[in-house]
Amino acid sequence: MRSLLIIIVFFLSFSTLASNGQIPPEQKLALNYIHALTNNDMKKLSTFYSRESIFQDKTADKKYVGRSHILEFIHRAHEGLIEYKFTVEHMFNSGSLVVIVGSYSYKGLGRLFGKPGKVINISVSGVTTLDVDVKNHRIKKHVDMIDYQTMNDQLEVQ
Amino acid sequence: MRSLLIIIVFFLSFSTLASNGQIPPEQKLALNYIHALTNNDMKKLSTFYSRESIFQDKTADKKYVGRSHILEFIHRAHEGLIEYKFTVEHMFNSGSLVVIVGSYSYKGLGRLFGKPGKVINISVSGVTTLDVDVKNHRIKKHVDMIDYQTMNDQLEVQ
Repeated sequence: MRSLLIIIVFFLSFSTLASNGQIPPEQKLALNYIHALTNNDMKKLSTFYSRESIFQDKTADKKYVGRSHILEFIHRAHEGLIEYKFTVEHMFNSGSLVVIVGSYSYKGLGRLFGKPGKVINISVSGVTTLDVDVKNHRIKKHVDMIDYQTMNDQLEVQ
Repeated sequence: MRSLLIIIVFFLSFSTLASNGQIPPEQKLALNYIHALTNNDMKKLSTFYSRESIFQDKTADKKYVGRSHILEFIHRAHEGLIEYKFTVEHMFNSGSLVVIVGSYSYKGLGRLFGKPGKVINISVSGVTTLDVDVKNHRIKKHVDMIDYQTMNDQLEVQ
C-alpha cells in the first residue's frame, strides 16, 4: 500500500520553478508527465514510457521495468484513492535529471491500511527524480523516495 | 567549482527529525558523518569510507570511488571556502537509505567563480542521499543533487 503514494494530484505554483521565468524543456516534460500521472490519464501516461522505462520506489524497495508493468502497477495503486495532492516545494534539473522535492497529501479508504470504515489522511515529504528524454518525449527513469516513517506515525493515531 | 557545494556546515534542529523523538541508527550515523564532513575532520571522515565507497554528485556528473579518491576531492573542494551552512529541512530513511532535503548556503572567494576580489554568497536547495552501513559504521554511497541553475542565477548578479 505504501506505493499508493506515488499517485499524486499535482498543484503547482509555476512561479517557484525558475527565477528567470522560463522552464527548461526537461522540467516542462516532467510537469506534463506528472500531470498525466496525477490525473490518472493512462492513455497519455503510456506515451511517456518505453520498454526500457524504469519506475522505482527506493524507499519501498519496489521496481517496475517497461511500459506494461508500470501501467499495471499504477492502475493497481489507484484502488481506494479518494484524493491525492503533490505540492512541489522545489524543482530543478541538471541536463536530463529532474529533481522534485515536495510533500504528498493522501486521502484514501482506511481498509487498505487495516482500518476499515475509516478515511485516512496522510501528509508526508518526498523526493522524486526523473531521468527524461526530451527528444523522444520519454521518462527513462522515475525514482521516488518517500518518508514512510512519518506516514506510519500518522497512520498509528488514526 | 560546483562540487564545492558538497562541503557543508551543519546546523540542525533535531526536533524535526523524528516525531517520536528517537533518531533511527541510520540517521544517527548519517548525522555523525555529515558533522565530520562539514567540520573538515578528515581523520574522522576517513573512517566512514571504504575502498568501495562511492561519492557522487549527480547534478555535476562527478563520481569518486574509494576512500583516497574521495578524501582527495574533499580536500580540493575546500579551497576558497569561507563559510558553509547546510540547513536540513527534512530527513528520513528507509532501512539503509537516508534522504536529506536541505538548503546549502555558501560563502567563498569570488576568484573561484571568475569574480576575483569579490566574496560570493550562494544559497540553493539540494538533496543528499546516503546509503549507510550501520554495522560497519560506513557510508557505502553518498549522492548529491544540487540546484546549480539557481546557483548560476545568483552568481550572475554578484
